[in-house]
Order: sequence, then C-alpha cells, then structure tokens
Amino acid sequence: MENKYDEPQNLSLTKKQRKIIRIKNIILDGATELFLKKTYENTSMNEIADFVALSRATLYNYFRTKEEIYYDIGTRYGQDLIKKLQKLKDPKKSGLEVLISIFKILLEDTLENPFIPQILSNLYLKLNDLNLLNNFFYDALNKNKSTEVKASIDSLDRHVIGFTNIFITYRIIMNSEFQRGIKDGSIKTSLGNFGFFSIMNIVYIGSGGFFRSFQFPLKQYGMTEKKIIELILELIISQLT
Amino acid sequence: MENKYDEPQNLSLTKKQRKIIRIKNIILDGATELFLKKTYENTSMNEIADFVALSRATLYNYFRTKEEIYYDIGTRYGQDLIKKLQKLKDPKKSGLEVLISIFKILLEDTLENPFIPQILSNLYLKLNDLNLLNNFFYDALNKNKSTEVKASIDSLDRHVIGFTNIFITYRIIMNSEFQRGIKDGSIKTSLGNFGFFSIMNIVYIGSGGFFRSFQFPLKQYGMTEKKIIELILELIISQLT
Repeated sequence: MENKYDEPQNLSLTKKQRKIIRIKNIILDGATELFLKKTYENTSMNEIADFVALSRATLYNYFRTKEEIYYDIGTRYGQDLIKKLQKLKDPKKSGLEVLISIFKILLEDTLENPFIPQILSNLYLKLNDLNLLNNFFYDALNKNKSTEVKASIDSLDRHVIGFTNIFITYRIIMNSEFQRGIKDGSIKTSLGNFGFFSIMNIVYIGSGGFFRSFQFPLKQYGMTEKKIIELILELIISQLT
Repeated sequence: MENKYDEPQNLSLTKKQRKIIRIKNIILDGATELFLKKTYENTSMNEIADFVALSRATLYNYFRTKEEIYYDIGTRYGQDLIKKLQKLKDPKKSGLEVLISIFKILLEDTLENPFIPQILSNLYLKLNDLNLLNNFFYDALNKNKSTEVKASIDSLDRHVIGFTNIFITYRIIMNSEFQRGIKDGSIKTSLGNFGFFSIMNIVYIGSGGFFRSFQFPLKQYGMTEKKIIELILELIISQLT
C-alpha cells in the first residue's frame, strides 16, 4: 500500500518531531494493512512490529496499545478527509453536486479501507458515553457554534478531541451543502436536516460493513466495485431529489 | 427484558435437555442486556454470572467463552427470525408487500437489539474466512440448491453451521419474494438480484450501526424511533419501485 500521507512539511516542527510523525505514519500504514488482511482482533502488537521492521520496544515507544493505533488510524483518516472535502467546495456547482462528490469520496475511501466507518462509529460511541452528545452539543452543531462545543471537549483524550473536531467540521460542511442545495433547488426532500443525516449515516456505516465482506466474486454477478458505488450514490440521490 | 424465547416444547427432549436449554436462554438474555448497556468489550464473564445469579463455575459449564455467548445470541436470534419470516408468506399479498413486512421486522428487531446485525456480519465473515463463499456456494444459493451447500458445511463449528442454515433460508425467502414481486408487477427495479441484496445488506448493517448510537434526543428533532424506521422503509421501497 502506498503512503498517501505526505511527509510533514510544517517548518515549525523540529527535525525530531518530523521523524516521530514519519515513523508513526509507517506504523499506522502497516497496521492498516494487517487489520485489513487479518482483522483487528487477530493482529498482535508483535506482528505489527515485525511487519514494519521495528523492534517491539521501539513500537511501544510510539504506541502503548493496539487500541491507540486503531483510533489513530481513524483520526488520521478523518483529518485527511476533511482536507479533501474542503477542496470540493465550489460555488459554480449545485449543493446536490457537491454532496454527491463528498459521498463519492467517502465511499471510495471506504471501499479501500472498509473498517474506517467502524473506527469512526466507535469514536462516536465514545463521545456518546461521555454524555457529550446532549442537547447542548447537538444544538451548538446545528447552529454552527463550534467554539461553544470546543470549550466542552478540551479536557478529553486526544482521540476523542481529534474526532470531535473532525465530526464538527464534517457536519458543518454537509449541513452547508445540504442547505445550499435546498436554496438552489437541486435538493428537494421532505427528510429535513436530521432525517438526511440519519439516512446518510446508515448508508455510510452499512457500506463499510458490506465492503468488509467483499470477498465473493463480483464479476460473476456482472458487478464491479465501481458499479456498487454507483448504486449507492443513486440510492442517496433518490433520497435527496 | 422479557424472555421472548419459548420454553422448549419438543417432547423428544429429556427433562435434563430442556433444563439446559432453559438456563442457556436465561444466560443469553442476561448477556444481551449487559452487552446493550455496557458493550460486548466491557462486559466480563463474571458480570454475566452475577447478573443472571449463577456461580462462575456454573456459567462456564454452559459457555466456555464470552465469544460463544456472543455467537449464540446471533444464531438463536437468526433461528427465531426465520420462524417469524416464514409466517409472513402470503399468496394474497404482493411480493413487495411481503418484502416490506420482512424489512419491518428486521428493523424493529434491530432497533431493540442494535448489535444483532454486527454479530451476523461477523458470522458471515467467519464463513468468508473459510473460503465457503466461493463460486460454488453463491451459485448454489442462487439456484436454491441448499442441499449441495449443506454437504460442504457439515464439518464446521456449530455457530457457523447454524448461521449458514439461517443465511441460506433467509436468502431463499428474500429471493423468492423478490422474484414473486417482479412477476406480479409490484417490484420494478433495474437492480437485479445481486444489486438488490447488496443494497439491502448495506441498509440492514447500517441501521444496526445507527441504532447503536441512538442516545441523542430524538424528540427535539421532531423524530421518533417509529419515524426513523418509516424513513428507512421508504428508502427501501424507493429502490424497488
């Protein structure tokens, strides 16, 4: 698997800090590959160390537990995703068109790495457990008051903080394109904001679960992975128009 | 949680066998309740024993591992589901109507017990790992040749055997209603058999994931659980008509 995560270019980082990020990325890439091949449960820290050619001791310097690697894969992915989604913003396109491009990226990423939606769901459940998804949090999100939410999460563990920032930005992007599509007439739906997010989450989480079990012979059914993604996009469009 | 699983009535069972089934059901019900409250990962065998008022030793007499309980919950549910689905067969109703009743049951069950789709997916992945989902298996399923498939699974562990039988029966029921709907004109879709199952699996697995994170205040969004299920059923109908 190629490394899609750029070397850190930020000049404010010291040489040592850049090395840490580089090695962490190598570990996360290797672990991702093993989790996809053997599942998370059946992969050990020893195997990860072997796979990326580090000693067991060095690996533990970077990540104390396998769970930490798991959640780091999710938050690293989320940060990368947000950057990609922000580039899709385009006033020349309709809200529906931008939303479709967003889902296309989400689904292609999920096809390549089917356990990502599961990691993100688990991070979401962590937020749930912390009772952060209460009225305040949801209200603030819907009104784009991300600073209010930020104040209440500053004391959390770094994965939950990372995920919360990703989740807020994701919701704001989706919400703004959804509203734009209703205004420009490209989106016609009785779903409402909440119904829209519900359906979208169901399709996203479900696609991950479906792609995870993608070991049967698609071709025999006249199917390709590309065609499955098209089917799912059509399903989403049918809910928005 | 009420026990929805009937006491075993089969007269060919001895009194002792009936007692084993009864106690197993009590354990499975208690474990389900704990898994829903605290997640599977955060529930220990000790807590399950405490919760159902059995000694640790007695619990281990019935189930050697927590994983066994987990998969037993899935296969017990599947067997119960098949019985319910078989009762829905009704020549006076269209294929579409019967399929909608099937999904209604699936979704209501999933709302009550959101980790069921995950257990079933994991059992499905076990089948995948065993390379059983090869051309032969899928071909046989599509041609309703369940006996051919049965021959190849007789040597597997009991959860995989149980699940395979459930999965075959489920596919046959769904397939037969899907074909019936196309013949009676109630279903009009370009999805094809495989596309239909793909979309349905995505929606089913996704609903489980979505319902698992159902801790936010639905009412504030003018939503009820019933309304969410209606939205999902509408989504399914939109794909079939």
